[in-house]
Amino acid sequence: MSVTDEYLANNDAYAAAFAGPLALPPARRLAVVACMDARIDVYRVLGLREGDAHVIRNAGGVVTDDVIRSLTISQRLLGTTDILLIHHTDCGMVTFTDDGFKQQVEEDTGIRPAWSPEAFRDEEGDVRQSVRRIRASPFVPHKRDIRGFVLDVKRGRLNEVK
Amino acid sequence: MSVTDEYLANNDAYAAAFAGPLALPPARRLAVVACMDARIDVYRVLGLREGDAHVIRNAGGVVTDDVIRSLTISQRLLGTTDILLIHHTDCGMVTFTDDGFKQQVEEDTGIRPAWSPEAFRDEEGDVRQSVRRIRASPFVPHKRDIRGFVLDVKRGRLNEVK
Repeated sequence: MSVTDEYLANNDAYAAAFAGPLALPPARRLAVVACMDARIDVYRVLGLREGDAHVIRNAGGVVTDDVIRSLTISQRLLGTTDILLIHHTDCGMVTFTDDGFKQQVEEDTGIRPAWSPEAFRDEEGDVRQSVRRIRASPFVPHKRDIRGFVLDVKRGRLNEVK
Repeated sequence: MSVTDEYLANNDAYAAAFAGPLALPPARRLAVVACMDARIDVYRVLGLREGDAHVIRNAGGVVTDDVIRSLTISQRLLGTTDILLIHHTDCGMVTFTDDGFKQQVEEDTGIRPAWSPEAFRDEEGDVRQSVRRIRASPFVPHKRDIRGFVLDVKRGRLNEVK
């Protein structure tokens, strides 16, 4: 039984207990941008209920053009207004450099990525960088409530970055 | 009390009951790519436990360059090998066209996005498109186990796209 087959069996149980359909637009008008890290179960960390908030995740929780694309669709088409960013301690993104990563990929594949790997040095600094990128975007209309956090993965606690 | 403050109160309870630290690399060597839709609690839909799998999410669950970036980091630096894609029924991405969206943004802001909004016509077709984009990438090393699904948001059930 593959890992995916095991999760599909779990989905059978989920579907059997499924409470019924919810509306498409996020009920709490919130979009969360978080790192893809396996330890971060965003719904549990925040006590989100299904239907509350869009959840956007990538390597680092970094605000890239794709996150701007998702936030633009989230706010313009689906009515969200608030943004909550989650980076975390013990993040893989501080373990390499963009130049080193691109060089290694080029050595292994012969091709140098045209995209930036988006490594960073410290989590708090990258939360601030991410907030600035959202504020600088002409496409995201609502910027009044943007707050950034670092999740302490040893304690499960969100610490706000001011 | 703002929405975010309310979720921070939830996080206090989460941290108080936190079971303790987990390892950085995903235990089940899986990366999930899913839509940001608020109704999809990926951990519950699949029965994932914290620490099991990377979770990458954006508008549509579409494989963009940023998803390729995240998958490349996931596989090359953190040891994942399997990929599971989740699109879903009643998706906002089928309600507009790329041209229409870009034109509307340009009319409202004066600036035309240089990125593709990535609207699609049908969920199954875009799951197949997303799988093809991963297979075509020179940067993602492990492609043996890539499986794509459409989540029925009325029933909570994952249906595989063959």
